[in-house]
Amino acid sequence: MQFQEKYKTYFQYIDKEIKSLKTFQAVPLFYDPIHYVLDLPGKKIRPLMVMLSCGIAGGETIKAAPAAAAVELLHNFTLVHDDIMDNDETRRGKPSVHAKWDVNTAILAGDGLLGFAFQKLLQTDIQARGLLADRFTEAMIIICEGQGLDKMFEEQQSITADEYLDMISRKTAALIQLSCELGAIIADADQMEIKQLHDFGFNLGMGFQVQDDILDITADQDTLGKKVGSDFEMQKQTVLSIKLRQKIGRDKFDSLDLNSYTKLLKNEGILDEVGALAENYFSAARQNLNDFAASEHKRLMLEIVDDIQHRTW
Amino acid sequence: MQFQEKYKTYFQYIDKEIKSLKTFQAVPLFYDPIHYVLDLPGKKIRPLMVMLSCGIAGGETIKAAPAAAAVELLHNFTLVHDDIMDNDETRRGKPSVHAKWDVNTAILAGDGLLGFAFQKLLQTDIQARGLLADRFTEAMIIICEGQGLDKMFEEQQSITADEYLDMISRKTAALIQLSCELGAIIADADQMEIKQLHDFGFNLGMGFQVQDDILDITADQDTLGKKVGSDFEMQKQTVLSIKLRQKIGRDKFDSLDLNSYTKLLKNEGILDEVGALAENYFSAARQNLNDFAASEHKRLMLEIVDDIQHRTW
Repeated sequence: MQFQEKYKTYFQYIDKEIKSLKTFQAVPLFYDPIHYVLDLPGKKIRPLMVMLSCGIAGGETIKAAPAAAAVELLHNFTLVHDDIMDNDETRRGKPSVHAKWDVNTAILAGDGLLGFAFQKLLQTDIQARGLLADRFTEAMIIICEGQGLDKMFEEQQSITADEYLDMISRKTAALIQLSCELGAIIADADQMEIKQLHDFGFNLGMGFQVQDDILDITADQDTLGKKVGSDFEMQKQTVLSIKLRQKIGRDKFDSLDLNSYTKLLKNEGILDEVGALAENYFSAARQNLNDFAASEHKRLMLEIVDDIQHRTW
Repeated sequence: MQFQEKYKTYFQYIDKEIKSLKTFQAVPLFYDPIHYVLDLPGKKIRPLMVMLSCGIAGGETIKAAPAAAAVELLHNFTLVHDDIMDNDETRRGKPSVHAKWDVNTAILAGDGLLGFAFQKLLQTDIQARGLLADRFTEAMIIICEGQGLDKMFEEQQSITADEYLDMISRKTAALIQLSCELGAIIADADQMEIKQLHDFGFNLGMGFQVQDDILDITADQDTLGKKVGSDFEMQKQTVLSIKLRQKIGRDKFDSLDLNSYTKLLKNEGILDEVGALAENYFSAARQNLNDFAASEHKRLMLEIVDDIQHRTW
């Protein structure tokens, strides 16, 4: 079954929350780009994970819908601002906000998305919404740190794999980790369960990003949605490039073209090594769910792990 | 007594809160600009008003220190992003963040300041911190709307005075209003008291901005801190320019130089009219405090109203 079809009920709740944002008509310069971003087709995996985590921890998934929408809004905030910083002119096959409007409009739209993210989160109908806000805020700051590290690393040729993994733990895994944690808190789970879903999100997020680095090299051009090897062509550091550069030395590395780069990744065993790393994250994620009772939500979440691990996009 | 000296105890609490931000040393690209902004000399009137409002409503002012710091951080977030959008190269006599670093760094620093603002706010030790977060978030969104309107109005020559006042109610008054409201909530004030302090903040904020428009024309060059008439020279709309343009017609207005503009503001009675408008806001603000018992905090707050109304900066 298609991804969107399988989780249809959840997406209906999430979309309803997102579409319920109040709009002050007099300020199209602020609201038009926000609605534009939210209407772009997206997989919405993160909000889905908020709802499923809530269900896994024994909560009513529908209660997690506002927080799910909040996570999607937070994600969109990072996309809009990161696209400016990374000079990315397209997003989900359409012009990014700063490309369609301008940088100033995109800054303001991103700010607004963050404001609406907090607003949605606070609509969660539980006693502990202060705690939700704590975790949300902390994650948001960590994501900014991750983006800061990412920009710093662009200028540095001597990043280690550990530094890179720390960066993606902030930039990518933090949001997925937050998603699962919020779901658990909304379900009123105990500390141990919250920790397990938090760890699950971390491991899945790390696996996701490492897999992303691998796909840049191994994917099929037609399904990837971007040019194969584009990370390498754009001199973007990945766990693959860092490990290879470390192994063969900077001088040799700097002289490689895409073809010889790909060949060396295989011959030097880097692709296997990093493949095993991704595999480890995914199995750790599965193990983090071991202690939870079997349920429809758990089954769906484990399918997401499979989908992400074996994805071609 | 000098402003900083008079409120010294309050500023010590506020500064202590602001300086207690945790910093992840590995990301100077993110944290250096944030500390740079926070170290710029600023009057810190808004955080002061959080603490005084708390005291006026019978609360322990020290309890309001984290929220006071949060308001200052929120204010700094708006300054950093607005300076990019407005192309302002200086802030408080120093290079603005995007001028000292670059636009990308300033976007990220602004985002971080907003994150730390929420974090500080949530450190408030009261049951109702969810409510604090609600009001904070709502104000933050309204401020974004105000900035959106401000940018839209730059392109429009037919703004009415009412539209302009609505814009500044969002862009300027919303934050002062929030400051006073937060203080009241932290003091566990009743609905009526919260409303009175909210209205007080609104009126003071409106008076502040209208006064700002007037000062651009009437101030003494040495004390203003920017060139007298710079709003006019930069074709920035103010309540003065809007009213004069409406009165004499666009064609005549467009041919004015600063000298004839200033003269007409006087001769056409606009300066008097807008002076009365400011006066109305300031007296309304004073009246909003009528029902509160006499206290040191109330006395200090009324002095701030006087200071703002009769300021030359």
